[in-house]
Amino acid sequence: MTNDINASCQNHSLVNSSLKIKLRTPLIIVNFKTYSEATGKKAVELAKHAEKVSRETQVQIVVVPQYADIAPVAGAVDIPVFAQHIDPVKPGNSTGHVLAESIKEAGAVGTLINHAEKQLKIADIDTIVSLTSEKNLISCVCTSNPQISAAIAYLNPDIISIEPPELIGTGVAVSKAKPEDITKTLLLVRKVNTKAIVLCGAGISRGEDVAVALKLKTQGVLAASAIVKAKDPYTVLRDFADATKQ
Amino acid sequence: MTNDINASCQNHSLVNSSLKIKLRTPLIIVNFKTYSEATGKKAVELAKHAEKVSRETQVQIVVVPQYADIAPVAGAVDIPVFAQHIDPVKPGNSTGHVLAESIKEAGAVGTLINHAEKQLKIADIDTIVSLTSEKNLISCVCTSNPQISAAIAYLNPDIISIEPPELIGTGVAVSKAKPEDITKTLLLVRKVNTKAIVLCGAGISRGEDVAVALKLKTQGVLAASAIVKAKDPYTVLRDFADATKQ
Amino acid sequence: MTNDINASCQNHSLVNSSLKIKLRTPLIIVNFKTYSEATGKKAVELAKHAEKVSRETQVQIVVVPQYADIAPVAGAVDIPVFAQHIDPVKPGNSTGHVLAESIKEAGAVGTLINHAEKQLKIADIDTIVSLTSEKNLISCVCTSNPQISAAIAYLNPDIISIEPPELIGTGVAVSKAKPEDITKTLLLVRKVNTKAIVLCGAGISRGEDVAVALKLKTQGVLAASAIVKAKDPYTVLRDFADATKQ
Amino acid sequence: MTNDINASCQNHSLVNSSLKIKLRTPLIIVNFKTYSEATGKKAVELAKHAEKVSRETQVQIVVVPQYADIAPVAGAVDIPVFAQHIDPVKPGNSTGHVLAESIKEAGAVGTLINHAEKQLKIADIDTIVSLTSEKNLISCVCTSNPQISAAIAYLNPDIISIEPPELIGTGVAVSKAKPEDITKTLLLVRKVNTKAIVLCGAGISRGEDVAVALKLKTQGVLAASAIVKAKDPYTVLRDFADATKQ
Repeated sequence: MTNDINASCQNHSLVNSSLKIKLRTPLIIVNFKTYSEATGKKAVELAKHAEKVSRETQVQIVVVPQYADIAPVAGAVDIPVFAQHIDPVKPGNSTGHVLAESIKEAGAVGTLINHAEKQLKIADIDTIVSLTSEKNLISCVCTSNPQISAAIAYLNPDIISIEPPELIGTGVAVSKAKPEDITKTLLLVRKVNTKAIVLCGAGISRGEDVAVALKLKTQGVLAASAIVKAKDPYTVLRDFADATKQ
Repeated sequence: MTNDINASCQNHSLVNSSLKIKLRTPLIIVNFKTYSEATGKKAVELAKHAEKVSRETQVQIVVVPQYADIAPVAGAVDIPVFAQHIDPVKPGNSTGHVLAESIKEAGAVGTLINHAEKQLKIADIDTIVSLTSEKNLISCVCTSNPQISAAIAYLNPDIISIEPPELIGTGVAVSKAKPEDITKTLLLVRKVNTKAIVLCGAGISRGEDVAVALKLKTQGVLAASAIVKAKDPYTVLRDFADATKQ
Repeated sequence: MTNDINASCQNHSLVNSSLKIKLRTPLIIVNFKTYSEATGKKAVELAKHAEKVSRETQVQIVVVPQYADIAPVAGAVDIPVFAQHIDPVKPGNSTGHVLAESIKEAGAVGTLINHAEKQLKIADIDTIVSLTSEKNLISCVCTSNPQISAAIAYLNPDIISIEPPELIGTGVAVSKAKPEDITKTLLLVRKVNTKAIVLCGAGISRGEDVAVALKLKTQGVLAASAIVKAKDPYTVLRDFADATKQ
Repeated sequence: MTNDINASCQNHSLVNSSLKIKLRTPLIIVNFKTYSEATGKKAVELAKHAEKVSRETQVQIVVVPQYADIAPVAGAVDIPVFAQHIDPVKPGNSTGHVLAESIKEAGAVGTLINHAEKQLKIADIDTIVSLTSEKNLISCVCTSNPQISAAIAYLNPDIISIEPPELIGTGVAVSKAKPEDITKTLLLVRKVNTKAIVLCGAGISRGEDVAVALKLKTQGVLAASAIVKAKDPYTVLRDFADATKQ
């Protein structure tokens, strides 16, 4: 963790007692998905590019590798690492489920929840947000439209990221194609919840898209393919980070 | 990998070209589930106990930690490591899914599939078995009764493990409570498939249960709580391993 | 439909143009679940008991039979019939899914959504509530705690029914065991949504439970086993209806 | 039921004691899906066309309407009616699930299981096939490739229908595009199971496709859009039926 971040004191005997990381805004979250360009050793390389941009620009960047890559990535970089999902389970007899304690011990400080590619029952979102709160993990719930964003705001996650599913992976930025969705999301969410960080995602491809997102009063973006599949991820991400300062 | 195992040593530049591990029988697979006794550092400690027993007894033991623990465990021990599940996805735009390539790069050489606590659609089992085959990963499909075992045998997994769900976690061993299910499973499976390793699981708690399982012509056991939650996992697992020699 | 109900009588050529039924409160909804006591001919008999109580007491009662029983029940009684669930699909190539148009043509005027025994993704709840609105069907979304109730209120269903899952089928009434959950639900929901009818359910077993529910300012109850599995469903339901007048 | 069919003697006091319908081959099953052309009143009309073709040609035709349309359809025609799916539940506290008893009382004599648009866990397929057997309902399990067909054959359904999902709804007939899949299915299935009726589906659009399917030794077809969405369903279905006699 850079010293820009109020880092969790690593208390190994009592994982749960560590403080929750405090993220600065504007915030750029990079979802590695299951892209081969961001799996295994390449996940570590990509995270290092992100760390470099974060260090150079002092912009807060979070990386979100696959579960099995959390430990190698968190061991290699000093920026926050999130999991892509956790399950609504407590330690015990579950097989193949993702336990909050497990991704935390591997070095994650938060998790995505309800991504459009991993949608959840509302009762499970509620349970998972509570679990992250108990474990001092940061919760970032993804939503698909303004009214669902407002609904989720009642469950008190740390971050809400609106991502219209029809724009994901298209290169058509939500901030340009659906600015009214972002504006409405902020309006509805802020009635309920003044603390949650609000991001937008889907199609965010270049610095300009980030700048527009911030002008619409979001506090950052959730991006994936534009960075992960770029020939030169460092340059694209640097462009994103620089755009937050416009 | 110990030299008891025909290890994938001819690592070409492409991960996928590595040979598939060949497991010896009798075989003991230890599923760590999401037990807190087998999460994070404790997963590594437990795997080391398993490695010690395997080295001392020359009995093949496989450990199955959570996804985020695969890399630390595989880096710490020289016995085969499996994932608890993989998803039927190829590299690409999936979030929160478990990619074959990812668990393989982290050090796993195989995976459980369709565990009673992570049941799958039949088309997905078929897809996942094919994926493991392409990636030279060992596939271990869990089944709940003899006819499902026979059905699964047609999909050509490397290992079939019959586990009557009502006995899982009970301490009442399948090999003692339902010997006829094991006998019938072997009878049906062998008509279709002579190569698959056949294991049994559910309630396997002590060496005696293992010995009975082998007498019934299985080639080993899939165990979990009896080992993971034991005060002294080494002793219990050593008892299991010694029993394979009776 | 009795003339107590503002029935959809202006049936134009298009089914969708029919007006939405307006339900009076207090309201008693009887979920038939898949109980054998409420399947097939017995569903029709039970619905007739409900109709009789409704006629005698002028209390609004809704019956919720299984899909295949909607047409026989709606053909036999003159009280509103709901489906137990609909799927978030439009007419087209889905197999085994429950189409809004289908249950409507069979005679249902509304549907339960997200019952604890049929929990849904939040995006699907949002889609289904929209579908019911388009089709002039009444939407009744079930929720498990106050904050989820408030979240759901943002999606604008016609009815919200809070049902703590741990009390379902126990005979321990939510109105007596968790009055604070009901009070908090109403407090949170009313900040967001002044129109939705708020019910409570789980363990509602006798008139007294209904009376307490109404004193807590709910507008009725969602009940199941206490009525469906009663030796004399008429008497139990009559007791419920009479209790709404205390 | 026509007298070509060994109809279930309707024993109202003991539904389960009725005999299972015996279907003749060649067999044409028409899946109504959730097409608006086959919902509500239109489901009844379409079923009447099917009945007419069946009566005129003496070819066995089964119709598969939505759940809520089973009672109206079964009340209107004298050919066998199937459900599109049932759930692996017994009578009791399930909401929104499809009970075998319910569709049977409504007049269905069988059910599709594991259609490509409603895929199931293997353990659930096994449970549902057992349930249909207990209730004297005909089970028709859909499969996506030859090895899954063989796997399913071990579970002893009455009918297995192979439907490569990539051809569903395309108008490109499986019998022409993938004859080798059909041949291999029959080869594998017949090793395990000599009794099951084997059908093929996906893209079956005209009599010629049916004739080819039968030449490949299937005992009929499972069709949907080509009939349901036809301007003149009677003529298309008559063409199908006539082709079975070539």
